[in-house]
Amino acid sequence: MYHAKAYSAASPTAPLAPTQIPRRDLTERDVQIDILYCGICHSDLHTVRNEWNSVMPTVYPAVPGHEIVGRVVGVGSAVKDLKAGDLVGVGCLVDSDQSCPSCRANLEQFCPNGVFTYNSPDKHLGGVTYGGYSDSIVVDRHFVLRVPSNLAPAGVAPLLCAGITTYSPIRRWGEIRGKKVGVVGLGGLGHMGVKFARAFGAHVAVFTTSPKKKEDALRLGAHEVILSTNPDEMKKHAGSFDFILDTIAADHDINALLGMLGLDGHLTLVGAPEKPLPVASFALLFGRRTLSGSLIGGIKETQEMLDFCGDHNITADVEVIPIQKVNEAYERLLKSDVKYRFSIDMASLRP
Amino acid sequence: MYHAKAYSAASPTAPLAPTQIPRRDLTERDVQIDILYCGICHSDLHTVRNEWNSVMPTVYPAVPGHEIVGRVVGVGSAVKDLKAGDLVGVGCLVDSDQSCPSCRANLEQFCPNGVFTYNSPDKHLGGVTYGGYSDSIVVDRHFVLRVPSNLAPAGVAPLLCAGITTYSPIRRWGEIRGKKVGVVGLGGLGHMGVKFARAFGAHVAVFTTSPKKKEDALRLGAHEVILSTNPDEMKKHAGSFDFILDTIAADHDINALLGMLGLDGHLTLVGAPEKPLPVASFALLFGRRTLSGSLIGGIKETQEMLDFCGDHNITADVEVIPIQKVNEAYERLLKSDVKYRFSIDMASLRP
Repeated sequence: MYHAKAYSAASPTAPLAPTQIPRRDLTERDVQIDILYCGICHSDLHTVRNEWNSVMPTVYPAVPGHEIVGRVVGVGSAVKDLKAGDLVGVGCLVDSDQSCPSCRANLEQFCPNGVFTYNSPDKHLGGVTYGGYSDSIVVDRHFVLRVPSNLAPAGVAPLLCAGITTYSPIRRWGEIRGKKVGVVGLGGLGHMGVKFARAFGAHVAVFTTSPKKKEDALRLGAHEVILSTNPDEMKKHAGSFDFILDTIAADHDINALLGMLGLDGHLTLVGAPEKPLPVASFALLFGRRTLSGSLIGGIKETQEMLDFCGDHNITADVEVIPIQKVNEAYERLLKSDVKYRFSIDMASLRP
Repeated sequence: MYHAKAYSAASPTAPLAPTQIPRRDLTERDVQIDILYCGICHSDLHTVRNEWNSVMPTVYPAVPGHEIVGRVVGVGSAVKDLKAGDLVGVGCLVDSDQSCPSCRANLEQFCPNGVFTYNSPDKHLGGVTYGGYSDSIVVDRHFVLRVPSNLAPAGVAPLLCAGITTYSPIRRWGEIRGKKVGVVGLGGLGHMGVKFARAFGAHVAVFTTSPKKKEDALRLGAHEVILSTNPDEMKKHAGSFDFILDTIAADHDINALLGMLGLDGHLTLVGAPEKPLPVASFALLFGRRTLSGSLIGGIKETQEMLDFCGDHNITADVEVIPIQKVNEAYERLLKSDVKYRFSIDMASLRP
């Protein structure tokens, strides 16, 4: 066991503050990573403030962070395909039973014994797992991703959660080239959704409530922008979409969005609004529409996504901050005051 | 133009009463049918009482009925493949533009110019279309279905709506043989869902709130019955279903049902609860589940369903009533006091 530097929260109301946390010594299957950057995901904030108490209560102290990019500094004896100096990533998962039907289907995110990168029981050291707001982490090889060398690491970090969360449902929907695809919300998730949908050859429209996001949406790759607060614009596009990726984590009018779908159209939620969404059955019956959810992605698919990003030069648009500004960043996150993801430079944690 | 005997409602609060209605003379594409039986669908009651006012306001007098079985008595000059004496059926649709993308895909139910069997604008006679609570009807050949001769006509009538409504989503779901399929609610729709799911080779479980329906569910073909009011029973089956057909038209706990689905499980609504269903996003995200709606079926698929029923000797379980008892039947329908569909014997309308 060794100690790593980290930022942790002591309670739902405490700010994140410097601390030291234990990390396990390398087992034969492990990879030790010096963390270079860690993205700030809204899940980090939900966890730190115990806002998912009913589903996953937070154990304190809490060290969030599951958008990790770093360099390998050591590997266990059984790890033959990674070596010191390699650029790697770690996402939302650090372990699973690797034997259940979900794991066998490369869908470790649905493993009943899956271990999340933070706030999950830590079978090595006891307590809970500590995430990437830290200078170092040790992770089972299976959950370590290779990062293409042509991508800037700060913008790669958010791919490990925001990236795979949006890539997976777009990829699984089917042949999306030439289809009319909507992306609802232009935040950390949404801006990645736009990039991926565009890279896959779709006609991309962004739904937003904020007229001032129009220019940026077009810059990110959208073909058009629909102001969802404007009934005329909405009416013009009613029944015309093949697929909609809904990234909104707050209350919103899901039936209005379902009405944008054409016959057999499909809307996938990747945000998790706290309150249930009131779905009108007629909005599904007429047009034989489908509403689904998607949760990050499996390890194999995450590697595929990173490789795709390497091939297409895709990274997240990030604002790089030192870790000392993380509490301020949380407040700005709540106001959607970031384009489009914070990426913490862990050099700020080193002497 | 000629006159047919019928039962109509004069207002949302009036009982159905005997009347005469106009029917058009045969055009070259038409089929004239002496109606033998007409099923009573809950939609009939919603329409008669103007309960779908916000979506499809009722025009009075209203003659409902879209589960029609009868004998051909005459055909137009262009109709070469039906002749007097043939046993035929008519469902929810009597016309469409037959040129839009939906029609070209054999999905006339989604045609923007589709004409429902009742309460739709009637382009031939003006006013609205009149349904099957009548001794005679004239329908475009394209919307007339052949009825297999081995099936008892009284039990065939409900296949034209309750049958196709449940057959279509089960058929489209994919290869269902050996899969675990749930049917929620054991009424007119549900009992057909059980028969079809069983005939397609699924392992069928019925979800019901009523313990006394257990024996009947098993008789209809279910392998097991789950009391949805019993948390222990529900827990035992959590996460285990591949597909659930939800036939409930009243408020119910959709999230509890979504929780029954396994990974990538799919729930299809065919009932239309008046109020929106509160859907918890987590219920969709975890397990990557899908919620969809399905609306009757196209004409080609309806013929396929009838042929399937002929091959597998499937009809609805019906209680045959004379039309003079239709108002009483509506009251019993509201109490779910029918096993499982009323079928009106139109001989009762003839002298």
